[in-house]
Amino acid sequence: MFHFTALVTCLALLFYFVTSFNVGKARVTFGVKAPAISGNPDFERVFRVQMNTLEWLPLFLPALWLFAIYISDAIAAALGVVWIAGRILYMIGYSRAANKRGLGFGIQASAAILLWLGALGAVTWRLVHA
Amino acid sequence: MFHFTALVTCLALLFYFVTSFNVGKARVTFGVKAPAISGNPDFERVFRVQMNTLEWLPLFLPALWLFAIYISDAIAAALGVVWIAGRILYMIGYSRAANKRGLGFGIQASAAILLWLGALGAVTWRLVHA
Amino acid sequence: MFHFTALVTCLALLFYFVTSFNVGKARVTFGVKAPAISGNPDFERVFRVQMNTLEWLPLFLPALWLFAIYISDAIAAALGVVWIAGRILYMIGYSRAANKRGLGFGIQASAAILLWLGALGAVTWRLVHA
Repeated sequence: MFHFTALVTCLALLFYFVTSFNVGKARVTFGVKAPAISGNPDFERVFRVQMNTLEWLPLFLPALWLFAIYISDAIAAALGVVWIAGRILYMIGYSRAANKRGLGFGIQASAAILLWLGALGAVTWRLVHA
Repeated sequence: MFHFTALVTCLALLFYFVTSFNVGKARVTFGVKAPAISGNPDFERVFRVQMNTLEWLPLFLPALWLFAIYISDAIAAALGVVWIAGRILYMIGYSRAANKRGLGFGIQASAAILLWLGALGAVTWRLVHA
Repeated sequence: MFHFTALVTCLALLFYFVTSFNVGKARVTFGVKAPAISGNPDFERVFRVQMNTLEWLPLFLPALWLFAIYISDAIAAALGVVWIAGRILYMIGYSRAANKRGLGFGIQASAAILLWLGALGAVTWRLVHA
């Protein structure tokens, strides 16, 4: 079973939910009424945090689970925690200024790419040795 | 096996496909040519229905499956049906006016959050008792 | 095990990563600074390639895996390769002009719909015969 990976998945979804919730709050704070998604740069940065998290989830979640299944539940979950931590840094930085999003972005990208590389390597190895 | 959850997954994907198809139709109806995604509020509301469904899918689908695996295929599928019903209400309401999207949104959010809470609870219980 | 489907999943994620990377490059080339996502049609088309890929991933990946589990790993993976090929055509076409995106779009849509139809049919058959 993959309990650690399942737990990290729940936590990643919670983080994503928070970024979505922040967009709703920012609509009120900055007076950007739905369906508009632009018009105020402070709103747009909060919106882009959610969108960017959404953009990375379909990369992160499949890579996380393939890594867990083909390599290790615990290592996958540990890299997943690093991804969430990078995402939190990215959210805090980007909410302040567009040029403060680099560090968190790099951390989460590295964690996701490691998960992807591990999954690809392990799947390929299995196919070659099957 | 998780036949009910698999069926509900197929139906949720069908609903999402319909919202995407509506965006293509709305491009023609309201004269918003690709790659533009704004300029006409009627088009923007149809576009936001698809986008919001896309935004909730990576929350809904993993929570649905973790709930099915850790708790029950049938209960997960039942909550999944509620999610789709809420989504349909949201689509109908939002297509008419931005302020008519509340009820459907609340229903689908409640179903998704219940799936997530159930999954988190069951995963945590298993980790503690492992 | 589903090694072929796992490999095609990794390749689909790689393709998606490339479309995201292209948006970052296009921000520099066309001078569209984050958080803006509009203002230059050349940038908007590159951005829409990524967004459209993101929009199809939650349709493609669950349909791919349900097809693999319920029908066949090898056929699912083969249709997955067609999907990626269609996506590459779509990316090349759309990067040049909005009206050159049709062929690739149709190929990837057909592959995704076949995966979805196969999954729905097989799941329904199993439920009826359970």
